[in-house]
Amino acid sequence: MKHILFFSALSVFGLGSLAAQEQDSLMLDKIYKESFTNGEAYSNLRYLTKEIGHRIAGSERSDRAVQWSKTLMEKLPFDKVYLQDVQVPYWDRGPAEKAFIKGSQEPLNVLLLGGSVATPTEGLEAEVLEIELLSELRQHGDAVEGKIVFVNKAWDETIVETGVAYGLNSGQRSRGPAEAAKLGAVAYLFRSLGSSRFDDYPHTGGTRYVEGIDSIPAFAISAVGATKLSDILKEDSKTKVNLSGHGAWKGLVNTHNVIAEWHGSEKPNEIITIGGHIDSWDVGEGAHDNGTGTMGTLDAIRTLMALGYKPKHTIRLVFYMNEENGVHGALKYGEEAKEREEKLIAAIESDAGGFAPRGFDIKASASQVALIQEKWQPLFEEKYWVSRFLQGSPGVDSGVWGRHFPNTVMFNFRPDPNRYFDLHHSAKDVFEAVDHRELQSGVAAIASLLYLIDQQIDTLH
Amino acid sequence: MKHILFFSALSVFGLGSLAAQEQDSLMLDKIYKESFTNGEAYSNLRYLTKEIGHRIAGSERSDRAVQWSKTLMEKLPFDKVYLQDVQVPYWDRGPAEKAFIKGSQEPLNVLLLGGSVATPTEGLEAEVLEIELLSELRQHGDAVEGKIVFVNKAWDETIVETGVAYGLNSGQRSRGPAEAAKLGAVAYLFRSLGSSRFDDYPHTGGTRYVEGIDSIPAFAISAVGATKLSDILKEDSKTKVNLSGHGAWKGLVNTHNVIAEWHGSEKPNEIITIGGHIDSWDVGEGAHDNGTGTMGTLDAIRTLMALGYKPKHTIRLVFYMNEENGVHGALKYGEEAKEREEKLIAAIESDAGGFAPRGFDIKASASQVALIQEKWQPLFEEKYWVSRFLQGSPGVDSGVWGRHFPNTVMFNFRPDPNRYFDLHHSAKDVFEAVDHRELQSGVAAIASLLYLIDQQIDTLH
Repeated sequence: MKHILFFSALSVFGLGSLAAQEQDSLMLDKIYKESFTNGEAYSNLRYLTKEIGHRIAGSERSDRAVQWSKTLMEKLPFDKVYLQDVQVPYWDRGPAEKAFIKGSQEPLNVLLLGGSVATPTEGLEAEVLEIELLSELRQHGDAVEGKIVFVNKAWDETIVETGVAYGLNSGQRSRGPAEAAKLGAVAYLFRSLGSSRFDDYPHTGGTRYVEGIDSIPAFAISAVGATKLSDILKEDSKTKVNLSGHGAWKGLVNTHNVIAEWHGSEKPNEIITIGGHIDSWDVGEGAHDNGTGTMGTLDAIRTLMALGYKPKHTIRLVFYMNEENGVHGALKYGEEAKEREEKLIAAIESDAGGFAPRGFDIKASASQVALIQEKWQPLFEEKYWVSRFLQGSPGVDSGVWGRHFPNTVMFNFRPDPNRYFDLHHSAKDVFEAVDHRELQSGVAAIASLLYLIDQQIDTLH
Repeated sequence: MKHILFFSALSVFGLGSLAAQEQDSLMLDKIYKESFTNGEAYSNLRYLTKEIGHRIAGSERSDRAVQWSKTLMEKLPFDKVYLQDVQVPYWDRGPAEKAFIKGSQEPLNVLLLGGSVATPTEGLEAEVLEIELLSELRQHGDAVEGKIVFVNKAWDETIVETGVAYGLNSGQRSRGPAEAAKLGAVAYLFRSLGSSRFDDYPHTGGTRYVEGIDSIPAFAISAVGATKLSDILKEDSKTKVNLSGHGAWKGLVNTHNVIAEWHGSEKPNEIITIGGHIDSWDVGEGAHDNGTGTMGTLDAIRTLMALGYKPKHTIRLVFYMNEENGVHGALKYGEEAKEREEKLIAAIESDAGGFAPRGFDIKASASQVALIQEKWQPLFEEKYWVSRFLQGSPGVDSGVWGRHFPNTVMFNFRPDPNRYFDLHHSAKDVFEAVDHRELQSGVAAIASLLYLIDQQIDTLH
């Protein structure tokens, strides 16, 4: 009798669970096949990058991206596709920047930091004070007055997780202009946050001013340019640099998040949010940041639809507007969801590029992460080379709306981090930098995760 | 008393082993820092690819690569650098191939398969018999006679591990010409083993003839060309294709493996072999195949030297000659090592490209692999994103000499597999396709593994 009971229990729990795992494994097979064979992320990305191009929030191009994205969604059997109104402050770069060392014909490659005010039309010329860290600024006291403050802190190339290296220096990009202006600087020149010292492209990114402190023009300079300038300053500390840039805030503009819903058959009121931001910086084509994230998450859903899948929960695709310079899209999404008391049970965000998929950072309790590592990770790691399921931070947009939803389990897609910050926010972020297989492999990983969340989220609680 | 004994045991085994792990972890930190900061693989690769270029075994360029590699090794504090004589049959492609559909101006992009005989000087023109699999050939019987046999089997894009997809079709490349000739075909046209259907580059690779069967000219055609030809044949099965190619075997040539030894301080007679092949196919620049493997393994050793490391075992770097079309270098290495009854305790091979490192395939017993997963893998996975340590096959060269050394523990470096077969054996395999961070991250992974083998190989037995 004991033996019979033993086998009976095994068939209910052990074998039953094995059969379920087998079923999941077959589903992942189908997902990967569909994504590699019929995937549309790459061809959609081509349109977004080549026909529309870069698309800073509030620009005419961002509007085209919104309208075209809506059309794309409407072609799929979603239950509902709509625009969510978002108001954003629109910043326009104006004519191309110029920078050179006085007396030299050779240009320095610079870009205004996003949100920067303009120089005088004819440019400004001043001596340069070079530092590595903003914390050194105060010790220079009066010497800051009238100078261009040049923060030349090299990227830490030794950190494999490049996002961590980015985080080490990004505070100096956002806080720098105000801190320099407080001490009388006339402009701010910031060594670009790019991962290669051989890089002659400037990388833009957001900066901000502080009420009551003068707004001074703020530029990013390429790594190669920063090294060149630093060498020249070592020879002659009185060297002057000439900078011109013509950015301006153009007031508030009405724009949108683009949203599509695929209603759940069992728990339609429980919502899995998936997506990424549709805006980009106003250089390059916003291919990896974040064309791949939007086109990839859309294609992940298309993949499940093509396989005839019927979700239990409602899957809501959101293309957030304005992640790059204000996150007003995510703020709006969160506020409205909170007002409606929506049940946002889980989220997936893709905003780290379209490189080979490595895994997902998970914002969840340690025990939930442990369950995911035990149950889901084995479905991915050996066959699909996706093996990184670690507790971590959500993406920027999910993180913003997540403040209203502290219990939402959030997944942040992690592609390989090596090449991202070589092109991030620069003219190098173009369609050609995206590999078809890497992108569609990521789509499959995201679609597989979405399927597992929909099927098994309840077992995590 | 019991408690005291318990803690004492813990301090000997538990904490002692923790301290060792801590020490390993610090060593890996230093290795990664050195590789990213001072690594020379990328700059050496630039020289190999741009100043020397592709280098098929026996060619004048392969000789330059040998001599230059020896010079590189002599600059480092190896105890011994030498050339090992290897005789190889030298195949020369001759003037560029041409192919076109009769009556059409548009060329088809083709390359002779390595080892192919030439067409008549003026080319050959014949009707085309299209099949997917060689196994279909016999059913066409007499219809093969006088035709160009065109094997148009598409790459299986759905397999994440692209090497497996390559293996599915590569037998048709090597066996095809002989099988087609047996039935009277006049030429062999083979859809390239490239991972993308959008690829208009032909990919070469070895083929072979069989004694007693006519040698017919054998070509690779690009995926795009294969699709185009197939479409045209559907319209008109009598379409003729014109092919010309001028390859020829030029007899035996004396060349070399390049070898450097760093003697062990404790067990100098026990040898860890590390390296990859220095020859390449005769198109592109042999960057990922296998400039990254040779320059990467050399730089892994340089990294340990730069850190003042003293190996316990002898580390022997081998740049094998002729992996691509004969493996005579590895054969010679194995024969001589066997004659000298050397103790080749472990091997690392790098011959799968210089993409982001993912792990190592391990030829060892299941219990040895389990120990490596338990002890070594945790040092790599979270911090360095290297997490794949699975039982598997050695590289081609290690596999060849390993026939004499069945107990050698062998590691086969596995970089990300997504992009490799898009450029493999084609004109796309150039320096620009290699990313600096990805390459140096791989160097660090290999150097770290080499350190762990040297320190702990004895604990695996």
